[in-house]
Amino acid sequence: MSDTKIFLQEKDIPRQWYNLAADLPTPLLPPLGPGGKPVTPDMLAPVFPMNLIELEVSTERWIDIPEEILQLLYLWRPTPLYRAHRLEEFLGTPARIYYKNEGVSPPGSHKPNTAIPQAWYNKQFGIQRMTTETGAGQWGSALAFACGLLGLECKVFMVRISYDQKPYRRLMMETWGATCTPSPSEETQAGKQILAKNPDTPGSLGIAISEAIEAAVTDQSGKTRYSLGSVLNHVLLHQSIIGLEAKKQLKKAGEKKVDVVIGCAGGGSNFAGTAFPFVADKIAGAKIDIIPVEPTSCPTMTRAPFAYDHGDTAEMTPLLPMHTLGHSFVPPPIHAGGLRYHGMAPLVSQAIVEGLLAPRAYGQLTCYEAAITWAKTEGFISAPETSHAIAAVIDEAKKAKQEGKEKVILFNWSGHGLMDLTGYESYLRGKLVDYPLPEKEMANSLTAIKGLPKAEARKSGKW
Amino acid sequence: MSDTKIFLQEKDIPRQWYNLAADLPTPLLPPLGPGGKPVTPDMLAPVFPMNLIELEVSTERWIDIPEEILQLLYLWRPTPLYRAHRLEEFLGTPARIYYKNEGVSPPGSHKPNTAIPQAWYNKQFGIQRMTTETGAGQWGSALAFACGLLGLECKVFMVRISYDQKPYRRLMMETWGATCTPSPSEETQAGKQILAKNPDTPGSLGIAISEAIEAAVTDQSGKTRYSLGSVLNHVLLHQSIIGLEAKKQLKKAGEKKVDVVIGCAGGGSNFAGTAFPFVADKIAGAKIDIIPVEPTSCPTMTRAPFAYDHGDTAEMTPLLPMHTLGHSFVPPPIHAGGLRYHGMAPLVSQAIVEGLLAPRAYGQLTCYEAAITWAKTEGFISAPETSHAIAAVIDEAKKAKQEGKEKVILFNWSGHGLMDLTGYESYLRGKLVDYPLPEKEMANSLTAIKGLPKAEARKSGKW
Repeated sequence: MSDTKIFLQEKDIPRQWYNLAADLPTPLLPPLGPGGKPVTPDMLAPVFPMNLIELEVSTERWIDIPEEILQLLYLWRPTPLYRAHRLEEFLGTPARIYYKNEGVSPPGSHKPNTAIPQAWYNKQFGIQRMTTETGAGQWGSALAFACGLLGLECKVFMVRISYDQKPYRRLMMETWGATCTPSPSEETQAGKQILAKNPDTPGSLGIAISEAIEAAVTDQSGKTRYSLGSVLNHVLLHQSIIGLEAKKQLKKAGEKKVDVVIGCAGGGSNFAGTAFPFVADKIAGAKIDIIPVEPTSCPTMTRAPFAYDHGDTAEMTPLLPMHTLGHSFVPPPIHAGGLRYHGMAPLVSQAIVEGLLAPRAYGQLTCYEAAITWAKTEGFISAPETSHAIAAVIDEAKKAKQEGKEKVILFNWSGHGLMDLTGYESYLRGKLVDYPLPEKEMANSLTAIKGLPKAEARKSGKW
Repeated sequence: MSDTKIFLQEKDIPRQWYNLAADLPTPLLPPLGPGGKPVTPDMLAPVFPMNLIELEVSTERWIDIPEEILQLLYLWRPTPLYRAHRLEEFLGTPARIYYKNEGVSPPGSHKPNTAIPQAWYNKQFGIQRMTTETGAGQWGSALAFACGLLGLECKVFMVRISYDQKPYRRLMMETWGATCTPSPSEETQAGKQILAKNPDTPGSLGIAISEAIEAAVTDQSGKTRYSLGSVLNHVLLHQSIIGLEAKKQLKKAGEKKVDVVIGCAGGGSNFAGTAFPFVADKIAGAKIDIIPVEPTSCPTMTRAPFAYDHGDTAEMTPLLPMHTLGHSFVPPPIHAGGLRYHGMAPLVSQAIVEGLLAPRAYGQLTCYEAAITWAKTEGFISAPETSHAIAAVIDEAKKAKQEGKEKVILFNWSGHGLMDLTGYESYLRGKLVDYPLPEKEMANSLTAIKGLPKAEARKSGKW
């Protein structure tokens, strides 16, 4: 039997990030600021350090990874590529299933792939303190980890209800030296206003983003900046190391082609990081099915228009061109907190419009069933977000069996679920429910972007 | 800078376990049964399958690892050997510090190294159901994982107070399909008797062991056996894969010798698994300091006599020759639950008596301080047990600095602490205390074993 794990040596780690913006058939639409005008780098300067803004707007195909960042990534990268022998056997599929194990990072997910570079670029720029928000806690703990290693202060606004329900996530952040504050808080004007109206609010990601941005831009020392863990171009860029490693590892495993690439998508960063290097091959003519997977209860990609919308509830961010359910959309309380976002990364959204991706949605019951199968075959307990990718992998493997085809399937096992076991409890006790949304809620007031580049791609039926 | 991680390919995994019983300068003393007579294999047959009993009593130096077990171990083994570059830099030490990362296993510790073989041997013997006990939950979740992969039923008696305080550990076990019952329970005579006397008891490991053994031996089908996660010879044997891998990896890293080997020791299995292959070198003449580390509050190795004692509180097990605080000793409630055991593995105990090991004890405040340093340098959050090894590593690295010696230090990072963060919370809030024990509590009623083989070794001052 071939190896279960394919390792890369550190000397073989990718030394450049891949930027899909360079290869998209049409140029990426710009974010829009007040008055509907494109946002300039200067306008973002109070929020992000200029060296990261340069990455955000770059259209260079390859961007060098600084050596010091590589040295930090070596704490867990390159991550192993696994062959899912036991799942294949269980399904009786002729497909060969491979997965990147991003759960081996200290915080347990793919998030530090961007947290480390973000903290490093901020430090290079002279920043001493970073602020961010976190919902379920994956991102907050990743940034706390990165700041802990680099000696930066880190302030995380954590959605109140998660702060109360997930004390372990908060404790992870504190162990790495971060300060974690329940949001809304009395520390910002945004937080105070919400608390004045509704002292018992459970909070929301939208509110927490507003507080984190305010805490950064109002610091008079100029030494504080804000950080976002998904959606933006530079975040997806940092994550491309996943797919680039996977390519080398698949080659090492003797695979000459990939047929299917799968990742779960909330804001889009782990999916994009895994898939974009293969999207490049697809643009160049390769035949690959590339599938971002979302929850049926927050069907950004499969049911929402491609439109300009704010990234946050409080309308503090620029308007971003994305598949969006509307920034006031409140997704049902599914356990995959990382997939409860109203929008989708502009780069992923535009790749959908271009007909390069084939998004798919699953209900959480199907996903937990897939996660239990995974735990009893491959052994690992998956994050609820990751279970969405597994559900799609199982379907694709069954399809390969029906078709009698030896397909090669790659997906990103984006993180472990050890901090998220209450969802498993609900499922195992038969208390978990799906949240089918009525059709009318999907139609929001946003106007779809018109005059789309290569709009005919939208008629291909692939999205 | 040299690599942070040294991998082994699966084809280079050790294919035999190492058995120190073959090399100890004096034969291992036997366990004693009723009437003080040595226990025979037949007497253990209702408790363990005969193929494991054969391993337990074997004095063969090398024992082949069945190929099917290797295939299962490949899910996470060989584990990476890490070079602790960032800790070395932080300490300014000339020492080169290496650690095995056993946290990459699906349950997050070294425990599945024996859970998988135990479940496999049981299944080979026709056993369909396994019982065990668990305190903090590391062992219970490892056996649940192994049984889940092999399709065996698994029944875990979990100490009541941990069952209530650590719902995530219980949920891990249930995710892999195990049944987890708070102990004492109404399901056994032992449990019923305790509950009749004290309905509100928080339970203890001793009670849970009694229940798990009773549940195995009273199953009339004959298809149930009991499993222990440390202490016994066959458990230490299975763990030897850690040290054997480390040897190959150190060689790959260009190291010609090792100066110091360190592991935390509760029952002794992760320490022994790491250290015994190096103890063999020491017996053959190599100069190595080999340091098992325990808590000052449960100082089995550093303060207790070498004596025959029961392995459990209820006196259901044979008498084992070991360093023991007495089977009625109740250690203070330190967070390192896995180090709260009154005895020490007979093989480790006898190696101490032989002067081969230099045990050391640390208070938990020192250990948490070491764990925070670790989290901010090496990035990983350590299990409270593992933090004891880290405390000793830091001391040895400082010593090397004082001496100006380029020592090579190896230790076992036995597991992550993501399920044990409440200890970190207490430490960070300044609420954690040490538990120095008064001298008189150390002197128990046990009679030290006399006429020890090579008793002069005890005078060498090495223990």
